[in-house]
Amino acid sequence: MENGNGKKWGFRADNDIDSAGITIRGILNDLMNSRNQEDERPTIPLGHGDPSAFPCFRTSQIAEDAIVDSLRSAKFNGYSPTVGMLPARRSIADYLSRGLPYKLSPDDVFLTVGCTQAIEIAMMVFARSGANILLPRPGFPYYEACAGFRNLEYRHFDLLPDKGWEVDLEAVEALADENTVGMVIINPGNPCGSVYTYEHLKKIAGTAKKLGILVIADEVYGHLTFASKPFVPMGVFGSIVPVLTLGSMSKRWIVPGWRLGWLATSDPNGILKETKVVESIISCINISGDPVTFIQAAIPQIIEKTADDFFNKVISILRESAEIMYDQLKDIDCVTCPHKPEGSMFVMVKLNSTLMEDINDDMEFCFKLATEESLIILPGTVLGMKNWLRITFAIDPTSLQHGLLRLKAFCLRHAKK
Amino acid sequence: MENGNGKKWGFRADNDIDSAGITIRGILNDLMNSRNQEDERPTIPLGHGDPSAFPCFRTSQIAEDAIVDSLRSAKFNGYSPTVGMLPARRSIADYLSRGLPYKLSPDDVFLTVGCTQAIEIAMMVFARSGANILLPRPGFPYYEACAGFRNLEYRHFDLLPDKGWEVDLEAVEALADENTVGMVIINPGNPCGSVYTYEHLKKIAGTAKKLGILVIADEVYGHLTFASKPFVPMGVFGSIVPVLTLGSMSKRWIVPGWRLGWLATSDPNGILKETKVVESIISCINISGDPVTFIQAAIPQIIEKTADDFFNKVISILRESAEIMYDQLKDIDCVTCPHKPEGSMFVMVKLNSTLMEDINDDMEFCFKLATEESLIILPGTVLGMKNWLRITFAIDPTSLQHGLLRLKAFCLRHAKK
Repeated sequence: MENGNGKKWGFRADNDIDSAGITIRGILNDLMNSRNQEDERPTIPLGHGDPSAFPCFRTSQIAEDAIVDSLRSAKFNGYSPTVGMLPARRSIADYLSRGLPYKLSPDDVFLTVGCTQAIEIAMMVFARSGANILLPRPGFPYYEACAGFRNLEYRHFDLLPDKGWEVDLEAVEALADENTVGMVIINPGNPCGSVYTYEHLKKIAGTAKKLGILVIADEVYGHLTFASKPFVPMGVFGSIVPVLTLGSMSKRWIVPGWRLGWLATSDPNGILKETKVVESIISCINISGDPVTFIQAAIPQIIEKTADDFFNKVISILRESAEIMYDQLKDIDCVTCPHKPEGSMFVMVKLNSTLMEDINDDMEFCFKLATEESLIILPGTVLGMKNWLRITFAIDPTSLQHGLLRLKAFCLRHAKK
Repeated sequence: MENGNGKKWGFRADNDIDSAGITIRGILNDLMNSRNQEDERPTIPLGHGDPSAFPCFRTSQIAEDAIVDSLRSAKFNGYSPTVGMLPARRSIADYLSRGLPYKLSPDDVFLTVGCTQAIEIAMMVFARSGANILLPRPGFPYYEACAGFRNLEYRHFDLLPDKGWEVDLEAVEALADENTVGMVIINPGNPCGSVYTYEHLKKIAGTAKKLGILVIADEVYGHLTFASKPFVPMGVFGSIVPVLTLGSMSKRWIVPGWRLGWLATSDPNGILKETKVVESIISCINISGDPVTFIQAAIPQIIEKTADDFFNKVISILRESAEIMYDQLKDIDCVTCPHKPEGSMFVMVKLNSTLMEDINDDMEFCFKLATEESLIILPGTVLGMKNWLRITFAIDPTSLQHGLLRLKAFCLRHAKK
């Protein structure tokens, strides 16, 4: 490309951003584009965890009203403090403290643009030459993208499907070295639908303490549990090991588009202050974008006033959907679900492509499924799990049943005779 | 810091984030904290460009209504596409095209979390080993922070106070080398209140073309001009040199807290596509946060329906305030304003500390001013301009007059006898 003087333009972009690799949003976009335009049936989206478009998952009236009041007051159109507005931080500190044996202060809470920015900041804080971080496989590839982009080395430990997707703690011990800064857990689990017990979380804390690393607990699906195990926040073990708790309004209030998340230090011993992690979080927050001010201002109302009715309704639909999913998957030969979902919005399913006539792997499976059935499912390859599928059950139960019928028809049609 | 096994915790945060140095928000925070709590007068904030709290600067009813309608529809609580929603991109493309000799398409527009994220992405796209970028001095230090954080070298060219803060184009030519990717201009000017003529912008385009570099045009204060010179978008010269245009709703609609900005490629020859800059922007956007979906969905209504009345009212208050500021500064001996503000929300003022008894520089000036007068002004040191001050006139005219009286009293009190 030459300019008028025969000199090449000096600004070709050839940096390493693409090293972040395929992303969930990128692949879902490609799948949507590979649908057959002549299929008049509605597309059934089982690829991502955003049921906000379904009327049965509409957020609470309280939350909508709080936003409208905040906006109409005209007091919150300006910039907010970089760490977030104090009333919102106080309210989130109280909210998170309900499940803990100690009390968080507003200074322990930093507001972020959704949980994704909390992830970015967590990766940014520890990115330095030679450091490494331990990530779960399967997990949420945004961690890999953020770490990779900032040259923070990541190493994967496996989650164990036969043990309810618990962390392989022996693998964690084997992977860690003197440059390991922390380990990430996602509980309730994306993509596995698992919920960790008090005992397992305590073991994780013990292992992390032994290794001298912190725990980053992604609790964006916090409280979304619908089987026998309750949600236990990792912060319960904050006196054993310092915990960074990540969360957001997105999932529990079904408003991912509101972009209001948080990062909290669950660390009653103050170790994250002494090791300058808190200082570094503040530095990162200072050069990062903020959540919308009038949404921040609505947080205290939303948190204090949302009735249990709303949460119970959501949980009850998720429970029903998870049951439908698990039961109907049993009838489909080429897939196996090793663990019934207990929380979050997802389940991981093993694909047995040897039973299929003309489909070699999960990528081919999902692309053909999108084309033939207008049904979107995430190939496990995106999560580092070839020949697995991540399926969400967080859509209205009727659509889910239609989706599972399409899946069954597709599998029958492509099965070896 | 030792854990239970006598091993040090492995996660001390010692990365280079702090190299970003002092930030505007950081220093304004420190100034606010240094106020005398016993001063019962209201604090007068002349340090930052956010007049949203003053009733006379309340955003248009149309904009508020559009947000409420969008929220109440319950259709926009979910995730948006990473590049932004198509109707919003189309609407912004049309809005930006009004001032151009060619038409932008929605594909030329990328939505960002305020203009700050547009800056982040622009710096991210060009960050690679050895590359450098040319930044204006004085300018907006977020550029330095984002470039520094990503190891993109930056070099400063001066703006010339005696020439209406025009770009020193000889300096630009002297600074550029084969690794220079682009130059940044901010027009209307933050912090100088300058507005560039068609002729000057054309010269900038010619120089950039000759050097083979692109122009990043920060037009966050676009259309906020109130003297004789009209606002000319840099994109007018997009056929001479490729332009990245950065902007937002924040300033023209007085809603910085809504965090809705954009980055647009003003490049009718498609050079940014050929040089893969567009591809790289998309990669960066894919791993960055998004603006709130229901705010994106309100954009077409806001842009199409906001009446000129609203814009005219804002311009008229800014004009009145700028006049008050310029006139009253003439009466204060220890400061000089080299150029009457014509646009944006700021003016740069030279401090003559040799005329003062007990104040040695701009930092001391501003901290004492905050303590003694509850008046906040940004020290030029933050912008690389020691012994200058950046003052905003974007507050209601009555408060501004009170602020200038306090400034005058302060200067008299500290003047050499």
